[in-house]
Amino acid sequence: MSSSDNWRQRLYIIIFHTDTPAGQRFDNWLLLTILASLVVVMLDSVSSVHDQYGSWLKALEWGFTALFAIEYVVRLYCSPKPLRYAFSFFGLIDLLAILPAILALLFADAQYLLIIRVIRMLRVFRVLKLSPYLRQANFLLTALRGSRQKIIVFFATIATLVTVFGTLMYVVEGPANGFSSIPKGIYWAVVTLTTVGFGDIVPKTALGQALSTLVMITGYSIIAVPTGIFTAELASAMRGGDQHRHDCPSCAKDFHEHGAAFCSRCGNPLFPRQVDQG
Amino acid sequence: MSSSDNWRQRLYIIIFHTDTPAGQRFDNWLLLTILASLVVVMLDSVSSVHDQYGSWLKALEWGFTALFAIEYVVRLYCSPKPLRYAFSFFGLIDLLAILPAILALLFADAQYLLIIRVIRMLRVFRVLKLSPYLRQANFLLTALRGSRQKIIVFFATIATLVTVFGTLMYVVEGPANGFSSIPKGIYWAVVTLTTVGFGDIVPKTALGQALSTLVMITGYSIIAVPTGIFTAELASAMRGGDQHRHDCPSCAKDFHEHGAAFCSRCGNPLFPRQVDQG
Amino acid sequence: MSSSDNWRQRLYIIIFHTDTPAGQRFDNWLLLTILASLVVVMLDSVSSVHDQYGSWLKALEWGFTALFAIEYVVRLYCSPKPLRYAFSFFGLIDLLAILPAILALLFADAQYLLIIRVIRMLRVFRVLKLSPYLRQANFLLTALRGSRQKIIVFFATIATLVTVFGTLMYVVEGPANGFSSIPKGIYWAVVTLTTVGFGDIVPKTALGQALSTLVMITGYSIIAVPTGIFTAELASAMRGGDQHRHDCPSCAKDFHEHGAAFCSRCGNPLFPRQVDQG
Amino acid sequence: MSSSDNWRQRLYIIIFHTDTPAGQRFDNWLLLTILASLVVVMLDSVSSVHDQYGSWLKALEWGFTALFAIEYVVRLYCSPKPLRYAFSFFGLIDLLAILPAILALLFADAQYLLIIRVIRMLRVFRVLKLSPYLRQANFLLTALRGSRQKIIVFFATIATLVTVFGTLMYVVEGPANGFSSIPKGIYWAVVTLTTVGFGDIVPKTALGQALSTLVMITGYSIIAVPTGIFTAELASAMRGGDQHRHDCPSCAKDFHEHGAAFCSRCGNPLFPRQVDQG
Repeated sequence: MSSSDNWRQRLYIIIFHTDTPAGQRFDNWLLLTILASLVVVMLDSVSSVHDQYGSWLKALEWGFTALFAIEYVVRLYCSPKPLRYAFSFFGLIDLLAILPAILALLFADAQYLLIIRVIRMLRVFRVLKLSPYLRQANFLLTALRGSRQKIIVFFATIATLVTVFGTLMYVVEGPANGFSSIPKGIYWAVVTLTTVGFGDIVPKTALGQALSTLVMITGYSIIAVPTGIFTAELASAMRGGDQHRHDCPSCAKDFHEHGAAFCSRCGNPLFPRQVDQG
Repeated sequence: MSSSDNWRQRLYIIIFHTDTPAGQRFDNWLLLTILASLVVVMLDSVSSVHDQYGSWLKALEWGFTALFAIEYVVRLYCSPKPLRYAFSFFGLIDLLAILPAILALLFADAQYLLIIRVIRMLRVFRVLKLSPYLRQANFLLTALRGSRQKIIVFFATIATLVTVFGTLMYVVEGPANGFSSIPKGIYWAVVTLTTVGFGDIVPKTALGQALSTLVMITGYSIIAVPTGIFTAELASAMRGGDQHRHDCPSCAKDFHEHGAAFCSRCGNPLFPRQVDQG
Repeated sequence: MSSSDNWRQRLYIIIFHTDTPAGQRFDNWLLLTILASLVVVMLDSVSSVHDQYGSWLKALEWGFTALFAIEYVVRLYCSPKPLRYAFSFFGLIDLLAILPAILALLFADAQYLLIIRVIRMLRVFRVLKLSPYLRQANFLLTALRGSRQKIIVFFATIATLVTVFGTLMYVVEGPANGFSSIPKGIYWAVVTLTTVGFGDIVPKTALGQALSTLVMITGYSIIAVPTGIFTAELASAMRGGDQHRHDCPSCAKDFHEHGAAFCSRCGNPLFPRQVDQG
Repeated sequence: MSSSDNWRQRLYIIIFHTDTPAGQRFDNWLLLTILASLVVVMLDSVSSVHDQYGSWLKALEWGFTALFAIEYVVRLYCSPKPLRYAFSFFGLIDLLAILPAILALLFADAQYLLIIRVIRMLRVFRVLKLSPYLRQANFLLTALRGSRQKIIVFFATIATLVTVFGTLMYVVEGPANGFSSIPKGIYWAVVTLTTVGFGDIVPKTALGQALSTLVMITGYSIIAVPTGIFTAELASAMRGGDQHRHDCPSCAKDFHEHGAAFCSRCGNPLFPRQVDQG
């Protein structure tokens, strides 16, 4: 193995893995750099800050973009399968983190592209991914996947409720009270059902307020549904499924209830007692 | 069997069932048509869109109504028991989806009937009904039905709370601060207890604000009650789906795996053989 | 037993019990009368209704008060222990439901006493109490009682959070932005932490908005705490305690874990298998 | 043991412990004094009260500060290890409860230091700590600690969501509609996602309202995640309180009753005796 290959592999472990101290240190610095670059993007959008420190922020932006560009090139260089990396989810995010900045810095009128730099936020998950957090995120995803169908039924119900309530409010309150169209009524119904309650559109008539009361009580109550679904699924995911794998010593049944002491098929004990026979 | 009968039965399977590829394709197209017709209804309520594309939308509306009318006739034709279909829940929804549009298109002054077309949204559930979602929706309904009595107690408590708090606020704040009557006070109490908080009526006096604090803390805390009820019931419903209720004759275990012959807790047979002792 | 005593006892069963058809009919009528009298109280507070139908409502009010007074006297008459009834919780509620109305109808300037009539709402629970709902309400109360200490810790935390955040916002935003005193700041903190968000007082400075973000995220997250507490307690209350009473056939241990197959003290099976010995 | 030492020890037990009647009485009085001093701090911040009763409140403030100072000195005196107390968490809180008041009463321009007196609120937890509430607070802390990693993943997701949504709204709505910078957009996204909904900044464009709908539905749904996490962990922590963790050497059961000698599932001894086989 050549010394260059050796160096490349060590770089690969530092950049892509997280189990070595050097890899962890790299991840921490990367996290800090991503967050710092996001702060620069945000500050730059505040007009008073932009007017006063605009050129400083631009310089910092150049710096961060350069850093990310170097990181991208190094990742491409040390990755054993560069193309696979380049077209992976995080590879594309890495590219999107530098491309718009380069374009915007070159062409003055591509200013709005700068906003895409916010996508750098997603790079935070790259750091989280390579960590013990992955297992926890997996629990959450398993629970969400397990409750997918229930969640679709729930969202279809929500969509129907806001459509019907929004239309009713449009009829009851009318354009004079701010409910100028059915989509606006639906917007109001979502604001109310989710208990956000901006207050930009509010019912003025007695009938409208009575109907709102119904929408609010509904929204307040059905929040229990996704919570119940998710809690039940998460508890099941944490427990690791409904059944437990253990071969019955007497028959061929290999999955049993949690806490089963006897096989439910042959009735023999799953864990025979070790008797002193003497 | 005549060729007409054969054709009618094939239509019936496509339209009413969902297990064949043709049936699934029909369902998908129906879902798309329903949603498209809803979009037309909504867009038509936006005055700027109505002014500009009013005639186009009217034409589309004619089209969708014609489609739904044809579908309704075909459903009546191919259904083995047309009357039973016509008076079923979904049969009436199907009729309501075309009737107001026809009336409104014929009589110009029946314009407000058009709103009833939003009821087409309910037809979405017809598509969901004929699908694996049914089982999931059933879990949710079982959980809701199981917690019916607890939910009634909960709603009676909520109703009492908002009545008492609404009246107190009416006394404390008075008409000068927007609490012009007890129903208005109750409307405010619902807005606050459900944590919606529009802000159209807010307490101005110190005593009113202290009382509001109490209402808000109450609302924030008792949301736990329906959630707890529903979660506990749903977990039980989900367990009931995987397991089978049967009291073990030897111990108290009352839920067993499907197909269990012996109790997994005490190892005794679930269905003891009645032995002739002689 | 005299015929008068017989009549008195039958009245007692109708009025105080709910298991006979007559008793249930009485309860239903009582519920309707209570709700109708509440509607009259509410309508009377709406100034436009009061101006137009004031005298009608007053007449109805006289009628309801007379009905409740008669009911109260009959309850006193037929109750086996009249004094005990008179000083029980529901006895006092029953008295409060008629007293203010009588006072207010006699003395014109005791108008505000009328508001106390809203206390009639509590009589609804008398009807609920005598019904299968009692058992469900009991589950809820058991769960609440079981989590009492946890809930006190939770409320102490909430109180500390709103005090500290309210004071901080008073310092950061100051009277110029509506945070005119610490109690006002605490009122705002409650409005925000409970996710009600009226919008009557909102942060204007950047630091205030950053701090608000913290308050909102906190409020959004800790809602999980009472929900979690209550759900866990309710599940436990529904399951009926953590342990199960069953005498071990071998030793004296009489409480065992749920689902225990063997005694955890002597290791012998709790439910010995019925072996055919032949 | 000298009489002074005896006296000191009795003081120590009264002040630091809570199991004696005298200790409980001391705790109750301390709680009342802390809350009363907080009420004085709050009332003093209300300008109308300050103008009228300013000198009275100042006198009361002197009184409370004197009381707390005496208490602090007595605690130092009777504590067996004064330095350890002085630098403990509650020792520092006790000092902070008197220091700013003394400074502010001596130097007129240190007025803002008075706000720090709100920190006295934390002393309430000293009283709670020495009580059966400790065990309950421990359950909550165990549950929070157990779900730490899941909560970090959840907060990282929330942070990403509000950053991306806030930036999108800044682009879609722009400064003309109140979204004057990305941080302001993020502030709005937090207000909306947490369902607070102040209404100080609201979307005005159709696209902005459609996007808001998405944010609100997201916020309404993902509240289920921390609730589910916490409920599952709390249930586990409560089980862990009643049961004891020990892996059964024969089967997979990992939680057992306190004092269990045999596994309640397989009946084998939990702690097998090491037999000399010879």
